[in-house]
Amino acid sequence: MSVIDELLARNERYAQGFESSGAPGAPQLGLAVVACMDARLDTHRLLGIREGDAHVIRNAGGVITDDAIRSLTISQRLLGTRSIMLIHHTECGMMSFRDDELGDAIERDAGVRPPFAMGAFSDLDGDVRESIARLRASPFLVSGEDVRGFVYDCASGRLREVAAG
Amino acid sequence: MSVIDELLARNERYAQGFESSGAPGAPQLGLAVVACMDARLDTHRLLGIREGDAHVIRNAGGVITDDAIRSLTISQRLLGTRSIMLIHHTECGMMSFRDDELGDAIERDAGVRPPFAMGAFSDLDGDVRESIARLRASPFLVSGEDVRGFVYDCASGRLREVAAG
Repeated sequence: MSVIDELLARNERYAQGFESSGAPGAPQLGLAVVACMDARLDTHRLLGIREGDAHVIRNAGGVITDDAIRSLTISQRLLGTRSIMLIHHTECGMMSFRDDELGDAIERDAGVRPPFAMGAFSDLDGDVRESIARLRASPFLVSGEDVRGFVYDCASGRLREVAAG
Repeated sequence: MSVIDELLARNERYAQGFESSGAPGAPQLGLAVVACMDARLDTHRLLGIREGDAHVIRNAGGVITDDAIRSLTISQRLLGTRSIMLIHHTECGMMSFRDDELGDAIERDAGVRPPFAMGAFSDLDGDVRESIARLRASPFLVSGEDVRGFVYDCASGRLREVAAG
């Protein structure tokens, strides 16, 4: 049985116990979370949130890319969120390589260089602070007031605040 | 108490009960999930996965943007995943607007037009199929073999398969 087939069986059990909350698309907590895709982060469990509560935007690094700004723009302008939590984490893979080296390796293997930056960073807290500044400076977001940045500690499960908007 | 402060209190309770699995960064199921940011989707609960199992990439619509490809490239090339589950869902907000209209509205309000497409779509199943084709065609991914696309039904909690890679 493939891993995806196994997860479909688990989804069938989820659906059997499912009671639709009837929650609308607009997040009930008025919150969007931006976090790294890292496998160790279950954003719902670590924040104690449930279906209907918050938008969750995740990518490699929890980087504030144009795509993250696109998602937040839709979250704020069409679905009314106002608070943003940004979550990076300890032991992040984005600190284990350099953009140019990975670009070179991919170009050698694929014959094409990625047309996008890979988003590596070396200073964890510094990158959170810079990302918060980028969010506050974006003309596309409606509100940059309640924007706060955190580092999640993979060893303790605890969030540490690094930057407030 | 602000919503973020309330979630920090919940995180403190999570941390108190936290036992580090010692899981490494590489996802134990060799899986990356790409899903919409929608508040009604708790990707971990609906798939029955836990901390350490899978990368989770989410944006507005679960659209296969360059940023999603960037994240998947890192997931496959640096952290060894091979399977991809793409999850869109019923009642998606991305079907409620048109790109040009939203771009116009933002330009009127912000004085600047977003330099990125907003990613609206009108055909849910069609967009999943197109996205799977885009993943299979990407030269940056190592493997497009176990790539499957689904629509999550917000009323029943159930995944319906639309496209296999």
